[in-house]
Amino acid sequence: MQLGMIGLGRMGANMVRRLLRDGHTAVAYDRNQDAVQQLAGEGAAGAASLEEFVSKLEKPRAVWLMVPAAVVDSTLADLLPLLDADDIVIDGGNSYYRDDIRRAKDVTANGQHYVDVGTSGGVFGLERGYSLMIGGDDRAIARLTPIFKTLAPGVEAAPRTPGKTGELQAGEEGWLHCGPVGAGHFVKMVHNGIEYGMMAAYAEGLNIIKNADVGRREHAADAETAPLTDPEAYQYDIDLTAVTEVWRRGSVIASWLLDLTAIALSESPDLAEFSGRVSDSGEGRWTALAAVEEGVPAPVLTSALYSRFASRGLDLYANRVQSAMRSQFGGHDEKKD
Amino acid sequence: MQLGMIGLGRMGANMVRRLLRDGHTAVAYDRNQDAVQQLAGEGAAGAASLEEFVSKLEKPRAVWLMVPAAVVDSTLADLLPLLDADDIVIDGGNSYYRDDIRRAKDVTANGQHYVDVGTSGGVFGLERGYSLMIGGDDRAIARLTPIFKTLAPGVEAAPRTPGKTGELQAGEEGWLHCGPVGAGHFVKMVHNGIEYGMMAAYAEGLNIIKNADVGRREHAADAETAPLTDPEAYQYDIDLTAVTEVWRRGSVIASWLLDLTAIALSESPDLAEFSGRVSDSGEGRWTALAAVEEGVPAPVLTSALYSRFASRGLDLYANRVQSAMRSQFGGHDEKKD
Amino acid sequence: MQLGMIGLGRMGANMVRRLLRDGHTAVAYDRNQDAVQQLAGEGAAGAASLEEFVSKLEKPRAVWLMVPAAVVDSTLADLLPLLDADDIVIDGGNSYYRDDIRRAKDVTANGQHYVDVGTSGGVFGLERGYSLMIGGDDRAIARLTPIFKTLAPGVEAAPRTPGKTGELQAGEEGWLHCGPVGAGHFVKMVHNGIEYGMMAAYAEGLNIIKNADVGRREHAADAETAPLTDPEAYQYDIDLTAVTEVWRRGSVIASWLLDLTAIALSESPDLAEFSGRVSDSGEGRWTALAAVEEGVPAPVLTSALYSRFASRGLDLYANRVQSAMRSQFGGHDEKKD
Amino acid sequence: MQLGMIGLGRMGANMVRRLLRDGHTAVAYDRNQDAVQQLAGEGAAGAASLEEFVSKLEKPRAVWLMVPAAVVDSTLADLLPLLDADDIVIDGGNSYYRDDIRRAKDVTANGQHYVDVGTSGGVFGLERGYSLMIGGDDRAIARLTPIFKTLAPGVEAAPRTPGKTGELQAGEEGWLHCGPVGAGHFVKMVHNGIEYGMMAAYAEGLNIIKNADVGRREHAADAETAPLTDPEAYQYDIDLTAVTEVWRRGSVIASWLLDLTAIALSESPDLAEFSGRVSDSGEGRWTALAAVEEGVPAPVLTSALYSRFASRGLDLYANRVQSAMRSQFGGHDEKKD
Repeated sequence: MQLGMIGLGRMGANMVRRLLRDGHTAVAYDRNQDAVQQLAGEGAAGAASLEEFVSKLEKPRAVWLMVPAAVVDSTLADLLPLLDADDIVIDGGNSYYRDDIRRAKDVTANGQHYVDVGTSGGVFGLERGYSLMIGGDDRAIARLTPIFKTLAPGVEAAPRTPGKTGELQAGEEGWLHCGPVGAGHFVKMVHNGIEYGMMAAYAEGLNIIKNADVGRREHAADAETAPLTDPEAYQYDIDLTAVTEVWRRGSVIASWLLDLTAIALSESPDLAEFSGRVSDSGEGRWTALAAVEEGVPAPVLTSALYSRFASRGLDLYANRVQSAMRSQFGGHDEKKD
Repeated sequence: MQLGMIGLGRMGANMVRRLLRDGHTAVAYDRNQDAVQQLAGEGAAGAASLEEFVSKLEKPRAVWLMVPAAVVDSTLADLLPLLDADDIVIDGGNSYYRDDIRRAKDVTANGQHYVDVGTSGGVFGLERGYSLMIGGDDRAIARLTPIFKTLAPGVEAAPRTPGKTGELQAGEEGWLHCGPVGAGHFVKMVHNGIEYGMMAAYAEGLNIIKNADVGRREHAADAETAPLTDPEAYQYDIDLTAVTEVWRRGSVIASWLLDLTAIALSESPDLAEFSGRVSDSGEGRWTALAAVEEGVPAPVLTSALYSRFASRGLDLYANRVQSAMRSQFGGHDEKKD
Repeated sequence: MQLGMIGLGRMGANMVRRLLRDGHTAVAYDRNQDAVQQLAGEGAAGAASLEEFVSKLEKPRAVWLMVPAAVVDSTLADLLPLLDADDIVIDGGNSYYRDDIRRAKDVTANGQHYVDVGTSGGVFGLERGYSLMIGGDDRAIARLTPIFKTLAPGVEAAPRTPGKTGELQAGEEGWLHCGPVGAGHFVKMVHNGIEYGMMAAYAEGLNIIKNADVGRREHAADAETAPLTDPEAYQYDIDLTAVTEVWRRGSVIASWLLDLTAIALSESPDLAEFSGRVSDSGEGRWTALAAVEEGVPAPVLTSALYSRFASRGLDLYANRVQSAMRSQFGGHDEKKD
Repeated sequence: MQLGMIGLGRMGANMVRRLLRDGHTAVAYDRNQDAVQQLAGEGAAGAASLEEFVSKLEKPRAVWLMVPAAVVDSTLADLLPLLDADDIVIDGGNSYYRDDIRRAKDVTANGQHYVDVGTSGGVFGLERGYSLMIGGDDRAIARLTPIFKTLAPGVEAAPRTPGKTGELQAGEEGWLHCGPVGAGHFVKMVHNGIEYGMMAAYAEGLNIIKNADVGRREHAADAETAPLTDPEAYQYDIDLTAVTEVWRRGSVIASWLLDLTAIALSESPDLAEFSGRVSDSGEGRWTALAAVEEGVPAPVLTSALYSRFASRGLDLYANRVQSAMRSQFGGHDEKKD
């Protein structure tokens, strides 16, 4: 079928490519005309303006937005007046599911369908396919099914879960209609929250192994420094790159994130080219907000988020307050460790 | 080559089977003679006593202990007097690496080698192979290499990490000599610490999705109950089993633990047969101890551990203290939520 | 001056009493006429209806709402049509500061002033005074200053901070104009967030002392139970009530919350009358939401909140997921600890 | 009575002064003879060597060590040969209670008593008195009671807990015999663990208030930056110094630590002279170790500890690992926030 794609960054462009390869057609638009020309050269129909983009789409249209969360609203404001009844608008970016609920009211009032798609897969999606978490009404999802089937990895991307035989069940092809509007981005949000937790789990563990040599280091013997009770227990110098390889095979913690970590360490065991300022792009925060509002404990996911904040120095004033208290009650001066 | 195995529980027995299948020979001993007979019927040489066990092994012997951490010391005490110089004792169980350091002194003083092997793979190891993290001296490891190669999953258990070509590097076959005595169990300890963090990450995330319907539930409107600001945002009823399937294909959080979760949910979506008392068997605690002693933050791994403690009610007195404080300052009575 | 009070629960009624004692006058209203009669007997003017309440107040009126957060909106809806320009509406309850911002727009559009007052002091406020954190416009705050001075504890409630001499600075009397609308409840919200953290800090510490006898207890020696490495280090049976007394005098952690804990333990050292289900009433959640939205790490405050959730069993499904995973990969059955 | 003091730093010297003021006598020794001369000028008997120190003490002697934890063992090694049976050795520093258990064996085998005293009070102890948490045998504690009564703040340091009347109960004078050897330092350890938690609670809360203006700041609109959903809700510029004053009076979170924070902010609201590298000196770590070994959750206390580690950059490698993962799966480059 035909899909219109607005936003031809890495994700949007590769999705178009994956659709073209599988026999679909696509109309592509981006403010950056170089990106449009690139895809036009690969078989998509390019558009120089939003008006041209809309005019090239067959009705009822299917328009997929793959733009930064911060510009979805303005893009929608430009797009909606150009659409007709029964067209479908898909937000495939990393929007907050609450924005979906709000936007869907406008879109529906305008006569169109609104579909939200949380997309995982990163730069590997072109080849591996994208894991698609989808919210919206049944009719719209039904119409888009050919697109989802092509974008998703397909059931063969993982062995079928033991016990599952016969007809494929929901999710097994790598795309899932999770529920009404917002449900797709809700599930994707939690997916990313889990991702933060898993990343931090590996990172903390590797840091503990890296510091298994702490017993060999000089240790100040003053009242400001915690003594190390048993230095002989921390005399190890362990090859982290090799550790990730051994964990990749047969261990309980094998995962795709571990595979990626193994690549990164293989390229640079000390990772010295990274400053260690870990960004967060929204979903981890929203997951924590959901946990708090639901009244559900999420200490692991939230700790992972807070560690990212701290990695960027956002704990500075809190730390100063504590140093100031120590100075007050104990006359402790700050020291350089 | 020949290996002696003491302890024929699920792990020990399956390791013997995997060795036999690959052409090794084995002498098997367990206090439970039924377990010995079972393996004898599968091709191992059985032993009715520790003395017989030792006598059936060719010198220099290789003796693998696969017994609960709590009985390693007593087993060693019985075993060491029966051994000869240059024999190797392997602790393949879940021992604390600090116990390795202590035990290795006794074993070495007695003239034998001590090797510690952290083993991951669980009940699937017989078929998938075991991820082996190994500590000990080079000579002992060299002698045991044929055993490790058979027990490990082999390089083909995972695609080679991009960029790695030619001769296999350390860890790529699924077994790794991590360092001197204790290094194997140290790496295995951290492996399990990471496992706790990953498990909690999935569990918290799934719990957040499960409670995405909180806006539909009755909500008391009293001063003891936090109000839900926006109930319309929590109206979802999402199929968790299907969610795990979609995440298994193409998503960033695909992993073996997720595969297992998908199996569990496929069998029982509400998991009502589980009480939710999550055991911990030592390694998670030791990982936290190592982080604290090294001075390395591990909030995710430690939160996961503490959540297990809380799942077993070990926070009871702390919670009572807080209810008592609330009663004192606010006249708040405890309520049933 | 004269104040109108709507809501004569423990907090509202005691505030009226404190005002009357200091020579102010008050008009009191509550749906529960018994509460009105009670205060009328103590010198307040009672009102049988909202209309009577408003009619008894001198213009420009000052109306203090001390009602549950969940009924502020409906009370305002009934009240606003009865008020005149330049009247002041004060929300002294535990409202979410974001609701203040929203409500203030309505109130201001209607011609009145909106003031939000976060109030700490609990059941002791009548005698000790209330710590008042206030948001709103300068004119309204200026008019209400006599009320705030009476309700607040006064500077003598604590020794002046060393270095502060001469004229009293902001906050020193125990009330503070924190900023525009919402600022009062924002500061009160964080106050309660800190309170959660402090309460949990004491509770966790006392729990650690209570369990200092763990080395004396029976300990299963199976693969499902973490071994206790050094039982001799956990042989203490310490009098927690006496500990709180010694900490109250001269220690760094002396506080009013500790005083209250000492009372509670003095009445009941084991606190067995408490089930340990710790409620949360909103502010702790909102503090966590603010931290996440600001991008500021708050691991201590959020951990305290999540522990309350877990104390009420809201982690059940997450724990079941983990037990299910353990069952899958290790054949571990759940055990009763 | 007479006490010998070894270690005349801030704590040791002030304790001698407090004893002298109350009519006790003291023999003072320190490697630094200036410190000895200083106290000799204030009424203590000075000693130029450990031998002279011991010789000036009346038998049975009472020797109080107030030296860094790292030099207790070497000091004891020098001291023990000079002592006689029934002398008492007191470790009043910040030793690990497990070291007490170990040391007490040596001391007792040598014929002396061993007493451990955890001491809180900081630089204010000279005037306010010291909160004393004591472990050891009954006979030794009985002999030292006059010393403890003088050093402790006395019952009048805090109002008696309501319900406590008549004869003073344990702890009410500000000193407590907590149990056998190590119990004093155990309780002091947990005291400091709680202190870490409280300090972090205040610090996190103040940081949240300080960042209540985040809605006013520039915010990048790219895929690497979490969007701020509702900037109008974060427009506050709140006077933190005034906030600490208002909380000191009548609020639930009033405490001595808050008093100190108010002093610090009064001197320097931005605390810019502090780098925010927060030291930890052992007890917080030991508290976390005890929680883990006991199997008791302590998420708040441990989070506070880990935040200190992170404030000193000890999370660097973990953060680099996470940045590296993000780079792998998403092509995300690190950014400067």
